Amino acid sequence: MFKTQPVRGMRDFLPEDMIKRQYVFDKIRSVFERFGFQPLETPAVEYLEILTAKSGKDVEKQIYKFKDLGDRWVGLRFDLTVPLARVIASNPVFRRPFKRYCISRVWRYERPQSGRYREFWQADVDIVGVSDPVADSEVLATAIFALKELGLKDFIVRVNNRKVLEGLCEEVGIKDEEKKMEIFRTVDKLDRLGQEGVRKSLLEIGVEEESVNMIMDAIRIKGRGIESLSLIGEVLGNSNKLFLEGKEELEKLFEYLGYYGLCDNVIFDASLARGLDYYTGNIFEVYLSGYERIGSISGGGRYDKLIGMLCGRDIPAVGISLGVERIIDLMDRMGMFKLPKRKTSVFICYTKDDLLKYAIELSMRMRREGLNTDFDLLGRKLKDLLSYADKEDIPFLVILGEKEMKEGKVVLRYMMEKTQETVTFDECLKKIKKSLEIMGIR
Amino acid sequence: MFKTQPVRGMRDFLPEDMIKRQYVFDKIRSVFERFGFQPLETPAVEYLEILTAKSGKDVEKQIYKFKDLGDRWVGLRFDLTVPLARVIASNPVFRRPFKRYCISRVWRYERPQSGRYREFWQADVDIVGVSDPVADSEVLATAIFALKELGLKDFIVRVNNRKVLEGLCEEVGIKDEEKKMEIFRTVDKLDRLGQEGVRKSLLEIGVEEESVNMIMDAIRIKGRGIESLSLIGEVLGNSNKLFLEGKEELEKLFEYLGYYGLCDNVIFDASLARGLDYYTGNIFEVYLSGYERIGSISGGGRYDKLIGMLCGRDIPAVGISLGVERIIDLMDRMGMFKLPKRKTSVFICYTKDDLLKYAIELSMRMRREGLNTDFDLLGRKLKDLLSYADKEDIPFLVILGEKEMKEGKVVLRYMMEKTQETVTFDECLKKIKKSLEIMGIR
Repeated sequence: MFKTQPVRGMRDFLPEDMIKRQYVFDKIRSVFERFGFQPLETPAVEYLEILTAKSGKDVEKQIYKFKDLGDRWVGLRFDLTVPLARVIASNPVFRRPFKRYCISRVWRYERPQSGRYREFWQADVDIVGVSDPVADSEVLATAIFALKELGLKDFIVRVNNRKVLEGLCEEVGIKDEEKKMEIFRTVDKLDRLGQEGVRKSLLEIGVEEESVNMIMDAIRIKGRGIESLSLIGEVLGNSNKLFLEGKEELEKLFEYLGYYGLCDNVIFDASLARGLDYYTGNIFEVYLSGYERIGSISGGGRYDKLIGMLCGRDIPAVGISLGVERIIDLMDRMGMFKLPKRKTSVFICYTKDDLLKYAIELSMRMRREGLNTDFDLLGRKLKDLLSYADKEDIPFLVILGEKEMKEGKVVLRYMMEKTQETVTFDECLKKIKKSLEIMGIR
Repeated sequence: MFKTQPVRGMRDFLPEDMIKRQYVFDKIRSVFERFGFQPLETPAVEYLEILTAKSGKDVEKQIYKFKDLGDRWVGLRFDLTVPLARVIASNPVFRRPFKRYCISRVWRYERPQSGRYREFWQADVDIVGVSDPVADSEVLATAIFALKELGLKDFIVRVNNRKVLEGLCEEVGIKDEEKKMEIFRTVDKLDRLGQEGVRKSLLEIGVEEESVNMIMDAIRIKGRGIESLSLIGEVLGNSNKLFLEGKEELEKLFEYLGYYGLCDNVIFDASLARGLDYYTGNIFEVYLSGYERIGSISGGGRYDKLIGMLCGRDIPAVGISLGVERIIDLMDRMGMFKLPKRKTSVFICYTKDDLLKYAIELSMRMRREGLNTDFDLLGRKLKDLLSYADKEDIPFLVILGEKEMKEGKVVLRYMMEKTQETVTFDECLKKIKKSLEIMGIR
């Protein structure tokens, strides 16, 4: 027969999962809107040259690419930032600043492993048209507020600036763009590879031993708050122009984050580089305190050259992405979802086939009143229906019986309490509404 | 430079479009849940053999297909029904009946033309595990209720049954499955090709002239309500078993739709066949009265063999899809959207750079109170900000001035009324909340 599993590395989301996901996405969307971001959506498919323009080698290898029926090379988007840059590049008259959000799916051909999927969702906010780091602090604050709104607390923020790393490369005499990017991607793996691993990798990609030593000295620097920034100045010498620019941008970021009351757990970490090639300034990652080992749950940075590369006119931009898959996994493991398994509140049964007409009429009345209502579609026995409603987590069962119907009444059964009472239609509706209100549903 | 338009046939949705789309999707989702359907989502990518198993030739040609990096043939889904069938096939122990909804994107390589897109959204409900036409009437009622909830009125429903068409083929001696499907797809184009066009096409695909005459006599039959069903019996002879089965299913559908109060504008139309190969029983299409020429805005039917084909065990199923792209286009053209251009309610300005700190603090306070709030990120002049807020359709502007701040006050400007007043922080918050309530926002 057919292979009916989803494509390797991708997932089906059954109702129980979907109810959790919708809860998370709805909350995030509401926070994004509260911070003044506007929705924007783009196609899943993009011309391949756009996708590969500035993705970086690691990600480029993971793009789902193919020729379409018109013989054009296209690919599935691997993030939500490149498509945004393309939209801005194609609408250069866009009123700025432009703040947009997008909660949608992206694809990467990753090696399937726990927590890594080939199709996954991202939730991004970006600000286009502001070069001052106030925009960096605004997107970072938005992400942290969204995480808090989901019930997560205590974060650690790691920050660095690509210009600091660029300055470092300049000081050790590395000018080649591709070589620099390779160094950034290697340095970024310090947590995973360790000091020795990074040193070895740097030597392998052809960095001179002396340069490696200086790079290792620099990327070791890490510390809470703004003071640690001066330590790296000592390694680099305080004259490199790129470094000084990056340092100033970081200092401003620290200052602005203070205005948001978010400065406490911000760590400058010279080894933070982020994997994508398009970053140009401040970069940042958010970790959940106590769960640093699972990796960042949000990350982003400034990409002032990406739009210009696409349209020939530089427009500054900065953004952040919430790693919603990791967040949902984490919340699930921590038992943070207090949600019903199903969205249905009322289930209507009938004891004789010719009462179906009334079951449908009563269902429609309840639905018009805003109640999520289902009725028996299979003419099952009451015993089976009780067990069905119980397993489906439906709190109210309404039973239409011939005798009660003649008196204009129905039996209302409270599934959780395992009690029931005979009431009129109107009473039934009123009692269910009241109970749902108390339960906090609608 | 780069080609920055979206891929041909696909679209970017800017905020103004997105706000309309979100309004429609949110409404539809709420109706689907009120009818007892549960959310389910599947990957965009499926194994190609699943997609092509029962799509039919017309659609098969339109599938975006490619080999992934693991050298497997995959494709982008062209509808939401085939993936649902696969999920059920891979979970045969699913508790039934299972009612699911999905509002998501699909891809077809169509010839780009007005109203046809290569990436578009569908909104589907399906009921798995019920063979009685009560499930057919339930999905049809759900679709019509959703359309009404969007403000559309007066529908015409066309119905037919694949078994009626199968019986017709049997009577004229056509047994070959692929030939039958070709006939169905041809017959379905009666509206577009006209009587002569269909006759010619049938002859072209090799149907005998005598058979063509009988088919043409049959598919001409069309009429309100259940009576027209007997007319087709006269053409077919009232003894064909498939025809009689199909007729009974249609009669039941009419009866049940009566229970929903939906029988008035249901037309039996023997030429309705629907394009996809997987249908097996009742099929239906919904048209907006007075706008029949733009085509159906919703359609679906029963596919009792699709799941069985994938897993070897038949499980009955029926579903309907809302053509949300057409619906949104239509609502837009009819001026039915009364929505603001942006989601932001409050914009905070400051007259001196060192007041930024307070602008951020006040923004955060408003956001915590649930107000969609933005502040000036560019340190612009008040004149420019007034014009910006005006163009961005933001109703309230809050101005932080040095003098007012010293008294713990701000200037609150009502953009629509072009009036302003000096108030305390608390008053400002209270007044904005009150006004938004009156405007019906939150």
